[in-house]
Amino acid sequence: MALMIRDLCSLHYPINLSNTELQVKECRILKSGCNGKKKLMSVNASASGSGNSKSIDTINGKKINGVHVGQRGNVVIEPGSSSSSSSSSSVNHSYMLGNFVDERFVYRQSFVIRSYEIGPDKTATMETIMNLLQETALNHVANSGVGSNGFGATREMSLRKLIWVVTRIQIKVEQYSSWGDVVEIDTWVDAAGKNGMRRDWIIRDSNTRNIITKATSTWVIMNRETRRLSKIPEQVKAEVRPFYINKFAIPTAQIDSEKIEKLNDETAQIITSGLAPRWSDMDVNQHVNNVKYIGWILESVPINVLEDCNLMSLTLEYRRECQLSNVLQSMTTMREIATSESDKNSGMECTHLIRMEADQAEVVRARSIWQPKQ
Amino acid sequence: MALMIRDLCSLHYPINLSNTELQVKECRILKSGCNGKKKLMSVNASASGSGNSKSIDTINGKKINGVHVGQRGNVVIEPGSSSSSSSSSSVNHSYMLGNFVDERFVYRQSFVIRSYEIGPDKTATMETIMNLLQETALNHVANSGVGSNGFGATREMSLRKLIWVVTRIQIKVEQYSSWGDVVEIDTWVDAAGKNGMRRDWIIRDSNTRNIITKATSTWVIMNRETRRLSKIPEQVKAEVRPFYINKFAIPTAQIDSEKIEKLNDETAQIITSGLAPRWSDMDVNQHVNNVKYIGWILESVPINVLEDCNLMSLTLEYRRECQLSNVLQSMTTMREIATSESDKNSGMECTHLIRMEADQAEVVRARSIWQPKQ
Repeated sequence: MALMIRDLCSLHYPINLSNTELQVKECRILKSGCNGKKKLMSVNASASGSGNSKSIDTINGKKINGVHVGQRGNVVIEPGSSSSSSSSSSVNHSYMLGNFVDERFVYRQSFVIRSYEIGPDKTATMETIMNLLQETALNHVANSGVGSNGFGATREMSLRKLIWVVTRIQIKVEQYSSWGDVVEIDTWVDAAGKNGMRRDWIIRDSNTRNIITKATSTWVIMNRETRRLSKIPEQVKAEVRPFYINKFAIPTAQIDSEKIEKLNDETAQIITSGLAPRWSDMDVNQHVNNVKYIGWILESVPINVLEDCNLMSLTLEYRRECQLSNVLQSMTTMREIATSESDKNSGMECTHLIRMEADQAEVVRARSIWQPKQ
Repeated sequence: MALMIRDLCSLHYPINLSNTELQVKECRILKSGCNGKKKLMSVNASASGSGNSKSIDTINGKKINGVHVGQRGNVVIEPGSSSSSSSSSSVNHSYMLGNFVDERFVYRQSFVIRSYEIGPDKTATMETIMNLLQETALNHVANSGVGSNGFGATREMSLRKLIWVVTRIQIKVEQYSSWGDVVEIDTWVDAAGKNGMRRDWIIRDSNTRNIITKATSTWVIMNRETRRLSKIPEQVKAEVRPFYINKFAIPTAQIDSEKIEKLNDETAQIITSGLAPRWSDMDVNQHVNNVKYIGWILESVPINVLEDCNLMSLTLEYRRECQLSNVLQSMTTMREIATSESDKNSGMECTHLIRMEADQAEVVRARSIWQPKQ
């Protein structure tokens, strides 16, 4: 979380931050009124909206400008409309999407873990978890009324060709779900210094109500054409500020904010070369999707660790974009650590680096914590 | 669909079919009573069941033996049970799973296309479609009352260490869905000759009610320890027979039942080597998941075809299992074909082969049809 200007400078190529005065600083000081007296969420809708969208004037007491609340997901299928069906199948698909809770500060969505989202040990993979976090975040923006193209950018961002890019994410897993389990994901956002946004998530097991995963991430804004980082324009701040809430998924003391060492040929214990992005790894921006790096990181983790241990915490630090033509190397170094008080060498801490094979430019640094399976 | 004994012989290693007398033949003759007078589905439940399962005696008028109908998916979350929630969030998760329709012959499930299930062109990928087909099929078995471990095997199959393996699947796509679209998938099964099972699917766009995708597949039974194909035991036939319905997703004339040519170094136009399965490609059987082969097939399709054309039909013929240690080659040959009456060279037909790099043993043969995007 201690994302500093020196980190941002090397985040994406071609980036030159010399004239952007970008500042993303620590922002963990509790704002007054966040965990105490909260303003009641109120939405004043004007009559100008039509169809499934309506124009609203204020959110959480803060004035906003012409935001349209797109009510995605209220598709109701009438029974008997299918020619081949002989039984009623009235399905209200709003149940399959999310909704706002906690005075509209928190967006909540439930998911069933699907058969193809589990790994060889029959539990949801880390990729699945990150996919679901991403999906909840995008639906949060899309349903907030400030979304534009549906991929996380607000309307004011789209007008300026700006996109959000994640710089760091930490995911702490206490329990992995199985196929058919229902999980409930809460997400919310807050400012991260002057020019960043923090997004947190918690995942609950819907059956036990236990929190099974916590995550936090930092985002900055980039121009999608020049690929340069940008300050957050005032108009964008006005859009997102009503949703900001100072609330932490991971207690401050447990957030992995330490520098991730940059591995090199000498310090890496394992190097896997020749990793080539596949067409199916590309996202709508024709860049490698954030989630796909997990698969490459695991390529340099020994098979016995993958088989015998659970990945309890993963911190990813994104430093450069990656495209279809790039060939990558995955590097890992491991050391034994204490993951419980009773056993001093009960787990493993790994440091990872994904870098370009051609010029060794770093793409993603990562840290992972592994614990032996019970 | 014309799955012959000669095909099965080379399906999986180490397989020796000489003493199994396996016969899977054409089975497209309409059975009497299927599209005409159908027996009403009736389930006679005994009082021996408890909890969420009940013992039933007959399905669709056919006697069955001690089948347990597990009622997955009736998880109801009470409002206010979340400590952080200040609004009601009563979610009946049965809406997120499927249900039987059409007199219990057809299993139906709806899905929202998620953000991470779309490709660079913003529509659901072929991998996504196959994942959803697989999920619906597995839920069909799990909810039918004959499922055991939840991965498609019936109870009588599990007792005998038998598993289903797919030998051929064809998917015809008329329209690809976008992020947030709701699709409704129907699936059902029928006998395929003496020792096979056919499974069909149709996918509807929930909004327009149009059928947008059709698929058909052939399955045989294998011993999960010896990896040899097996006849379907009478006890297994008794379990699955009540669900059989003679109904075709793809009209017989449109089913791709032609032999797929086996490419070699001379006939392949494009060969991509060094494809290595990743840990995340493995399924619960620690073999490469059926769906993952699609990604490798696309690795030898030229980028301009991937970008400018839609994959309208894909036929996969599985011939050998693949494990983590294998290195694969993807081979493709293309020719122009007419995909519409007005234009004689409007599309492409590709023949593909995935084979082992070490000994050139074939893993998957495939045929794909591509049409230029509008």
